[in-house]
Amino acid sequence: MIADKMRELVKNSSAIRAMFEEGKKMAKEYGAENVYDFSLGNPNVPAPPQVKEAILKELEEADSLMLHGYMSNSGYEDVREAVARSLNQRFETAFAQNNIVMTVGAAGGLNVILKTLLNPGDEVLVIAPYFGEYNSYVANYDGKVVVVSPNTETFQPNLKELEEKITEKTKAVIVNSPNNPTGVVYSEETIKQMTAILDRKQKELKTDIYLISDEPYRELAYDGVNVPYLTKYYANTIVAYSFSKSLSLPGERIGYLVIPDQAADGKEIQAAANAATRILGYVNAPSLMQRAVARCLDARADVPYYNRNREVLYNGLKELGFDCIKPQGAFYLFVKSPVEDEKMFCEAAKKHRILLVPGASFACPGYVRIAYCVSYETIVNAMPAFRKLAEEF
Amino acid sequence: MIADKMRELVKNSSAIRAMFEEGKKMAKEYGAENVYDFSLGNPNVPAPPQVKEAILKELEEADSLMLHGYMSNSGYEDVREAVARSLNQRFETAFAQNNIVMTVGAAGGLNVILKTLLNPGDEVLVIAPYFGEYNSYVANYDGKVVVVSPNTETFQPNLKELEEKITEKTKAVIVNSPNNPTGVVYSEETIKQMTAILDRKQKELKTDIYLISDEPYRELAYDGVNVPYLTKYYANTIVAYSFSKSLSLPGERIGYLVIPDQAADGKEIQAAANAATRILGYVNAPSLMQRAVARCLDARADVPYYNRNREVLYNGLKELGFDCIKPQGAFYLFVKSPVEDEKMFCEAAKKHRILLVPGASFACPGYVRIAYCVSYETIVNAMPAFRKLAEEF
Repeated sequence: MIADKMRELVKNSSAIRAMFEEGKKMAKEYGAENVYDFSLGNPNVPAPPQVKEAILKELEEADSLMLHGYMSNSGYEDVREAVARSLNQRFETAFAQNNIVMTVGAAGGLNVILKTLLNPGDEVLVIAPYFGEYNSYVANYDGKVVVVSPNTETFQPNLKELEEKITEKTKAVIVNSPNNPTGVVYSEETIKQMTAILDRKQKELKTDIYLISDEPYRELAYDGVNVPYLTKYYANTIVAYSFSKSLSLPGERIGYLVIPDQAADGKEIQAAANAATRILGYVNAPSLMQRAVARCLDARADVPYYNRNREVLYNGLKELGFDCIKPQGAFYLFVKSPVEDEKMFCEAAKKHRILLVPGASFACPGYVRIAYCVSYETIVNAMPAFRKLAEEF
Repeated sequence: MIADKMRELVKNSSAIRAMFEEGKKMAKEYGAENVYDFSLGNPNVPAPPQVKEAILKELEEADSLMLHGYMSNSGYEDVREAVARSLNQRFETAFAQNNIVMTVGAAGGLNVILKTLLNPGDEVLVIAPYFGEYNSYVANYDGKVVVVSPNTETFQPNLKELEEKITEKTKAVIVNSPNNPTGVVYSEETIKQMTAILDRKQKELKTDIYLISDEPYRELAYDGVNVPYLTKYYANTIVAYSFSKSLSLPGERIGYLVIPDQAADGKEIQAAANAATRILGYVNAPSLMQRAVARCLDARADVPYYNRNREVLYNGLKELGFDCIKPQGAFYLFVKSPVEDEKMFCEAAKKHRILLVPGASFACPGYVRIAYCVSYETIVNAMPAFRKLAEEF
C-alpha cells in the first residue's frame, strides 16, 4: 500500500541499514574496539562546552512561553539578526535578519529552498562526487538531477561539462565545499570561473540560475585554507548552513538558509521560504536550539582533533601505497580503489573489519569514502588492518 | 522565479501574516492589554516544570555525543520504547518501539505518513470544519483533498456524506478530535459508526483505507470526556501525536507517529516512514527533545487553566446571545456568525479590538474561531468588548 516512489527508496535505505546492522553485529562479535567503522559521518567529537552553557542560560533566563513557543516560521528575529551579524563580521557581507531563515538542519534548508524554487521538470545540476541525498531532495519536488561527472585529477568541478549541461531548464546548481565525500575545498579560482560561467549562461539563456551552497562542513577546514563565501561572487547564491558538524549537534536539526536581497526575486524567495518551512511540516526550526546556537556562533567543536585524524590516516594510507588526494576540509578521505569494482574492495576490507562506503553512492565508482570523524584510537588501531588489506591488492 | 505552486500559498500566507501584523500594530497603538487577540493557537500556559527538569537531567547525565548525535531516523529506541509503554498503560494497546516513529511535531508526522502513502491523484478525505494546513500537506504529495461538508448541528462528522465520498481512489481519511476549530470530541458512537463504514467500504472496494488520527489536542479534554483511541476500533489506523499542546512545546517540534503492526502492510509502512523522515530532510526528530519528552510522558500543561477560560468565555458569550456548541476539548470555540458573511463579522470585531479567524479558513463559512489559549485576564477584559459587538448585531 505504500507509495510507488517510496518503494525504491525503502529498498536503498535497507541496503544502508544492512551495512549499519552489519557493523553493529561485527562490533558484538569482535568487540567494538576491533571493528573499524569508517562508514558514517557521525561526529565523534562532543559539542563544545558553550552549547551546554547556552542551553542552561536560556532555561534559566528565558520565559518558557517564549523559549518553547511558536515564533515566525523563519525563526526568532533576534536569532536571525545574530546570525546575520556574525556572517557580516566574518565574511564582510551585509545581511540583515530578513536574509536568514532558520531551518531544521541543512537537509531541512535544502528541502525548503528546492520546494520554493522548483517546478516539475526543472533541472538541478550536481557535481560528482556528491552527497546521494540530493537525488531524493530534488525528486521530492519533481525536479530532475543532472550530474556533472567527476574530475578525478583534482576533484575540483569539471567546469567545461558544467557549462555544457546548463540548459533553459536549469534552475539551480548545488555545490558542497568542503566536499562530502572528497574533503576537497573548491578554490577561489574555481569559484570565480564557475560563477563567470553561470553569469554568462544566465545572460545567454535569459534565465536565473541559483547557486545553492550546501555548507555543513564550512568550519571544518585545515591548514588555514580559504573557503570562499559564495554570495560575494554571485548574486543568485543561496547558502544552506548546518550546525551539525561545527557544533557537533547533528541530532538537534538546526541550521539556516541565507537568501540575499540581491538574488533575483530575493524578497519573494524569502517570503516563499517562510511559507515552505510551514507547509513542509517543519513549521519552524526547534526553538530552544535556535536560541542556544545564537549564543555559540563563535564556538567550534574540536577541529584540531579531526585534523590529527586526517594527518595520521592520510599519511598512513599513502605509506601503504593507497592513492588519495589530501583533503583540506570536512572529515572524509576519498581513496582510489585498487580494483576497478570498488564494491569488491569494500567487501575485502570488511574481512579485515574495516567498513567503507563505495564511491558509487556518490556517483563516483572506483573510489571509496573513509569517514575519519571517529576516535583517534580507531585510526591508530586500524592501521595494521589497512596494511593487511594493502598487501592483498 | 519561485515555483508556481508556491505562488498561491505565499499569497495566503501573506493574508495570515497581515492579520498577525495587524494584531501587533494594534497592540502597539492601544497597548497589548487592550487588544483581544483570539486568532492564534499558541499556548499561553507554560511548559510544566518536569520539562525543564528533564532537560537539565539529560544535560547532566547523558553523553554529549549520544544526546546531540544521530540516531535511527525513526528516533532513539529507548524513547520509542517508553512512548509505546506509556500508550499501552493508558489505552490498553500492545505497541512496541517499532510501532513508534518520533517526528518533528504532528505536522512533521502527517507529512511523513502522507509521503509514505500517497501516489499522485490519491484521494484524502477531510471532515469540515478542518485545519486548513491539511490542504498543503496533501498537495505536497500530489494527493487530492476531498471535503466532507460540516454537520453544523453537532459538529460530529457527517457520516452519510463520508460514506458517499469514498471511492477506489480514497487512500486515507484524516480525523482530528478534539477538533480544531470546534473543540468537539468525536464520540465513541461516532467512531464505531465511522470505522464500520470504512471496514465495509474496504471490503466492497477491495482497497485499504487508512484512518489518520491527528491528535495534538488529545490531552486537552474536559469534564472527564472519553477520547477514544482509534487503533482499538480500526486496524488501518495511524496516529499523529504532538507534545506541542500537552507540554506547551509548540516551538520545539516534537511528536510521534503510531504505526500498528495490524495495519495493512504495517511493517512496510514503518520502514517507509523511517525513510520518508530522512528524505523529507527532517532526518530525525530533535534529539534532546526526544529524550526530554520521554521523561515527561505523564506530565501535562495546566489543563484546568484552559478549562476555566473555556467556562468563562463560553458562558459569557452564551449570555450575550451568541450561538455556539460547548467544546469538550482543545482550546477553541466555534461561534456562529450573526451575519452570513463571517468575514464582515470579523471586521466588525476588529473595531472592538477583538481578533477572530473566519470559518472559511476551516471550510466552514458562517462561523468564527476563537482561540482561548490566551491569558484569563484577556478573556475577562474582552467581555465588555464582546458585549458591544453583540449589541451591534
